[in-house]
Amino acid sequence: MAVSRVRLGMIGGGAGAFIGKVHRQAAALAGGIDLVAGAFSRDPASNAETGRDCGLSAQRVYASWQALLDGEGRLDPAERINLLAIVTPNHLHAPISGAALRAGIHVFCEKPAALSSAEITELAHLLAQGKALYGLAHTYQGYPMVWQARHMVQAGAIGRLRKLHVEYPQGWLSDDLAGQGNRQAAWRGDPQLAGQGGCIGDIGTHAFSLAEFVSGQRIERICAHLATHVPGRALDDDCAMLFTTEQGASGVLLASQVCAGEENALKIRLYGDKGGLEWRQEEPNSLIHRALDQPMRVLRAGANHGWLCDEALRRIRLPAGHPEGYLEAMANLYADFALAIGGSRRAAAALPGIETGVRGMAFIEAALASHTSEAKWTPLGAYP
Amino acid sequence: MAVSRVRLGMIGGGAGAFIGKVHRQAAALAGGIDLVAGAFSRDPASNAETGRDCGLSAQRVYASWQALLDGEGRLDPAERINLLAIVTPNHLHAPISGAALRAGIHVFCEKPAALSSAEITELAHLLAQGKALYGLAHTYQGYPMVWQARHMVQAGAIGRLRKLHVEYPQGWLSDDLAGQGNRQAAWRGDPQLAGQGGCIGDIGTHAFSLAEFVSGQRIERICAHLATHVPGRALDDDCAMLFTTEQGASGVLLASQVCAGEENALKIRLYGDKGGLEWRQEEPNSLIHRALDQPMRVLRAGANHGWLCDEALRRIRLPAGHPEGYLEAMANLYADFALAIGGSRRAAAALPGIETGVRGMAFIEAALASHTSEAKWTPLGAYP
Amino acid sequence: MAVSRVRLGMIGGGAGAFIGKVHRQAAALAGGIDLVAGAFSRDPASNAETGRDCGLSAQRVYASWQALLDGEGRLDPAERINLLAIVTPNHLHAPISGAALRAGIHVFCEKPAALSSAEITELAHLLAQGKALYGLAHTYQGYPMVWQARHMVQAGAIGRLRKLHVEYPQGWLSDDLAGQGNRQAAWRGDPQLAGQGGCIGDIGTHAFSLAEFVSGQRIERICAHLATHVPGRALDDDCAMLFTTEQGASGVLLASQVCAGEENALKIRLYGDKGGLEWRQEEPNSLIHRALDQPMRVLRAGANHGWLCDEALRRIRLPAGHPEGYLEAMANLYADFALAIGGSRRAAAALPGIETGVRGMAFIEAALASHTSEAKWTPLGAYP
Amino acid sequence: MAVSRVRLGMIGGGAGAFIGKVHRQAAALAGGIDLVAGAFSRDPASNAETGRDCGLSAQRVYASWQALLDGEGRLDPAERINLLAIVTPNHLHAPISGAALRAGIHVFCEKPAALSSAEITELAHLLAQGKALYGLAHTYQGYPMVWQARHMVQAGAIGRLRKLHVEYPQGWLSDDLAGQGNRQAAWRGDPQLAGQGGCIGDIGTHAFSLAEFVSGQRIERICAHLATHVPGRALDDDCAMLFTTEQGASGVLLASQVCAGEENALKIRLYGDKGGLEWRQEEPNSLIHRALDQPMRVLRAGANHGWLCDEALRRIRLPAGHPEGYLEAMANLYADFALAIGGSRRAAAALPGIETGVRGMAFIEAALASHTSEAKWTPLGAYP
Repeated sequence: MAVSRVRLGMIGGGAGAFIGKVHRQAAALAGGIDLVAGAFSRDPASNAETGRDCGLSAQRVYASWQALLDGEGRLDPAERINLLAIVTPNHLHAPISGAALRAGIHVFCEKPAALSSAEITELAHLLAQGKALYGLAHTYQGYPMVWQARHMVQAGAIGRLRKLHVEYPQGWLSDDLAGQGNRQAAWRGDPQLAGQGGCIGDIGTHAFSLAEFVSGQRIERICAHLATHVPGRALDDDCAMLFTTEQGASGVLLASQVCAGEENALKIRLYGDKGGLEWRQEEPNSLIHRALDQPMRVLRAGANHGWLCDEALRRIRLPAGHPEGYLEAMANLYADFALAIGGSRRAAAALPGIETGVRGMAFIEAALASHTSEAKWTPLGAYP
Repeated sequence: MAVSRVRLGMIGGGAGAFIGKVHRQAAALAGGIDLVAGAFSRDPASNAETGRDCGLSAQRVYASWQALLDGEGRLDPAERINLLAIVTPNHLHAPISGAALRAGIHVFCEKPAALSSAEITELAHLLAQGKALYGLAHTYQGYPMVWQARHMVQAGAIGRLRKLHVEYPQGWLSDDLAGQGNRQAAWRGDPQLAGQGGCIGDIGTHAFSLAEFVSGQRIERICAHLATHVPGRALDDDCAMLFTTEQGASGVLLASQVCAGEENALKIRLYGDKGGLEWRQEEPNSLIHRALDQPMRVLRAGANHGWLCDEALRRIRLPAGHPEGYLEAMANLYADFALAIGGSRRAAAALPGIETGVRGMAFIEAALASHTSEAKWTPLGAYP
Repeated sequence: MAVSRVRLGMIGGGAGAFIGKVHRQAAALAGGIDLVAGAFSRDPASNAETGRDCGLSAQRVYASWQALLDGEGRLDPAERINLLAIVTPNHLHAPISGAALRAGIHVFCEKPAALSSAEITELAHLLAQGKALYGLAHTYQGYPMVWQARHMVQAGAIGRLRKLHVEYPQGWLSDDLAGQGNRQAAWRGDPQLAGQGGCIGDIGTHAFSLAEFVSGQRIERICAHLATHVPGRALDDDCAMLFTTEQGASGVLLASQVCAGEENALKIRLYGDKGGLEWRQEEPNSLIHRALDQPMRVLRAGANHGWLCDEALRRIRLPAGHPEGYLEAMANLYADFALAIGGSRRAAAALPGIETGVRGMAFIEAALASHTSEAKWTPLGAYP
Repeated sequence: MAVSRVRLGMIGGGAGAFIGKVHRQAAALAGGIDLVAGAFSRDPASNAETGRDCGLSAQRVYASWQALLDGEGRLDPAERINLLAIVTPNHLHAPISGAALRAGIHVFCEKPAALSSAEITELAHLLAQGKALYGLAHTYQGYPMVWQARHMVQAGAIGRLRKLHVEYPQGWLSDDLAGQGNRQAAWRGDPQLAGQGGCIGDIGTHAFSLAEFVSGQRIERICAHLATHVPGRALDDDCAMLFTTEQGASGVLLASQVCAGEENALKIRLYGDKGGLEWRQEEPNSLIHRALDQPMRVLRAGANHGWLCDEALRRIRLPAGHPEGYLEAMANLYADFALAIGGSRRAAAALPGIETGVRGMAFIEAALASHTSEAKWTPLGAYP
């Protein structure tokens, strides 16, 4: 079957941005995707330079996201972009997503999907019309061993789930980087651009989504404590919470950006009545399985092993021992998006979508509510 | 200075017990301590056999702890025991400790110090009379790198403490061992013998004490969730809590005995505004230091390094790379007790004592109260 | 400065091949490189399919490498390929390289550069004419922490080098895969296609080049023992050797493809009179530094640290804790090749080139000679 | 069965010595062994002090090893020592061993057993008379997971052995410690006291014995390169060799005391046609098993697992996750010696004995011969 190549546009991701370049590299690595249009920066020089670096024709480097949607809309359907990557600060995620979806353009959006329940409800309604696909860039869901872990939970390898611990310690905001001029830190600390959640929104949602994804369970209620450790910072830089799931498991979620010296140490552990699983993002090619009745096993990513599930295998490019990492995980999301555009239902189902965004929003709001509540437990709110 | 050898007696620790043999091996390893009397088991045959194995004369193997105190009391002071190790189930800790202290015999007691605030208050009053020394077997405080971590916190290596995470996952109670006849599991699950805390008392207190010891801070309030995952079990087998300290740091404490496949994975992490520290009991000879302004460092136990503090160095027996472990840590407590009996104030101060027991009791009671409370925070009670 | 995009052609790399796809992904990840022509397979269907998958126009998917050079030669110079990736079995490396270089096309060739000294001498003569650039795909030289290690050796961080240990255990040829139809294993085991070296040529040369690259020293003489452990295999599947360098250091080199269960465990350790360094390919983002006068340090890849050298930093795409791997390392070679084509002398100098191929050839020949020699030491031969 | 307690004497091990104190602590930890006599140092004050520290009566602290044997010989047989630990510099090992054995006293001797073939032949003849037992302190043979590895090799877990790699890098002699007054370093560097082998004798023999013990194969021939890296040092401080076994496996042995920054990193790896095993002394409670047909497994020491062999289990004191280390390993040798004295044939067979000493001597002599030979291979000589 000949699959048409995907024509990608991008909003955001000019010089100095982190995640935009990640998206471009991941799309290139995925294969079958050509970046053909962009509005990378409001600064004209930066915008033009990024366009040139990416090999774009000058006509398709637009001054604003609105100009991009307008301009592409005037092109021949076979030429115009059919996928839009949104890598702006958070406040623009929902407006741009909505406009693109209305124009029938598939959207791959950085998280969070939106800043409020109202915004996300609107997106969900739009998507229900089925005009275009929507994916949310929960990169960690692109790792093969995350799928292997999920598979093993579903297959009963650890029995009935009892405990679920997920943690995401970072240390890069231990100092007042925003005050020192770091742009990444600056917009993340500005409620107008980032939303009401600081750390809880930036990385807490990653931990939360990973927990729900791997366990296959929904978190029902939480008891959260947030903190802002660095003077002058407007949003939380640290959070911790107890939680229970609808199925009766319990656990702890930690996320912090002031764990000095930690890099990006996302880790999940699950314990059932027959065994446990452990996965660490910083060593993503290993998955530890501790069954009660056998020695500890370390499952390693690699193409030829009989014990890896299909969903893990199709996310692995290299033989065991050739490490794959973060860009490959993100590339797996892009590859699935390309397949989904080509008609693959499996790939479409594998993408984190609006429901992940809805859950994330519920999580942030519950965490903020719990933090200021004197009651122990706060339920995760119901959304459309 | 010639130091007299210590004459040790032991209550508990007959065949099938775990911790009693650990104490005997640790005392032997410490040096300068002779086990000379014991009441190891209420089963006469077992009692006699343990006595023979330990090389005791038959006259000094007693039928009960009361008989031991009586019998030893009739011996010449230069011959009778001057240190008593109490390694019975929990409910006997306070009664035996009290009787021994009244008899002027130093006491080294397994934790918990007592089952109730009333009991422990009485012990504290006794100790205030200064007739004898008292130590609590918080083994993990015997590890050299735990002292090094504490030293580095005090010396400012990580700056002002912000976050404190301590976890103690075990998996050995994932099944109903008590129902299968395991004696260790049985008495730990019986409120009459173990007290009201299951996991929270058995290992939660270790995590708690380690956190307060290394950080030098006192936990002020907690928000705890306990659980009993194995049907038929009377006490909790799992707990998690949020906490804040009197100095304003916050953190999480996890302890569980149903983390299937975990062995004895006590771990502590501290993060300040200048760096972080991490120590894992299962790899006790390493201490990870992540300063904000230098590469991650791994400090290793070993006798010759300029960067280890005195308190760490004096707890190390071997050159780097010759692993020391749990028995050596316990032996360090015995060694300090021998030195304390010989008059060393430094060693006496280094021993976990009744105040550690008081804190542990406050912790257990607060955890149980918090668990059933609908309020978020429960303060740690005040004790004598 | 506007850098022109590189127009890449590829010989080899059809369906079922491993390294061809790696090159395509790495080139895409590097950025600035467009694959525009290929002769991927002698099987017409496979050739065409790979071309389609890569988005090539059918006219530029050629039936043979000769046809590719002919066809591209007839295109406008601004359109024809200016870089050729050679990812065929070994016996074609030198013939294709020679033809391309004569046509003025830059060559990026999989290792080994050639099958014999005669072939490589001819390549070296061609290159001396300066018509085109040449790079050899020693992927491991693309890792940032390999450059950091080399930098630290040069900067004196470990003092004068005494010991140099390099090992490369794999296990994937523990069974007779060639007999089971594995094509990767089959051609590697055929002297006509692979050359006289089996394991020694396939991965021994990687270990050797890494040792010379990181240490900055040349291996002067070796004492080698080769073995073929799997019945029916024509070439060695295992080798080990002692060696000394021209500067007086000594060491051991291990390479094996029958170390059952090992994945791709390339590791190098260097010890000088002031400290040691250790790097493992399977955890490529860490570099261990053990100085005699300070605690062990673990240097981690990541963009913002003051202690990483420029050559390491420019090979890092992501913040610390976002793992990069093998594809990123290969992409770094492509990125340098693109820069070199654009005129960067620094990038050109950073590429492993023909001299690396010459050394590798000398290494293989010396290893084979040493293996059958009864003398202890065999010198590495001199080449042009 | 009532086992009589062992009455231990010790030669060597005064203040400042390393291994003497290790023996005393290990004997205490083993249980059932009472240190009752010693000649710890030729310095009278040091000798007396060590005796007091050990709780010995002054009459049984002797001025020399001859005085000890004389004095003990005059005591009642039920009181005199029945086991003698020899922890002197190497040159006294054989003379003292011989004298003790002739007196009917069991001997537990530090390695090497002797300085020459002549000496060791004489010891072997003495032992053939069966008057007393003899054990050689190859500590690493006391680790439970070393026995587990040996068991798994014998049970076929890795199939037919192909490769055997053993390495023992230390860094403590990177500087001229002897010149700086370090006594441990001084006698090890003096051929009169240490014998002709420096590093090769001190730690090379440990690596060699471990390789033969775990593999169950005998090394047949070696090709060795020794070096002395620190100026002024009389003996080798570094060695490396290729070898083959009588059964056709091949491998590499490294031992060095100038691997700057390394601690005591003894490691062994075995690869057969069905899988591989790896054990590291610095993390002795884990054994890695890589079978070709299943995920990597990590076997952990701990008392309750069904997959550990009897010989491993009986060397484990604690539940999994309570680390045991070097002293426990040495204590396991003492415990076996006590059992052997009590009549256990199994324990007697488990002790490293004179045949281990004979092999070690053959190894040192072959290594020295190979180093100066221009032939590639040197056979291990035959001994009585």
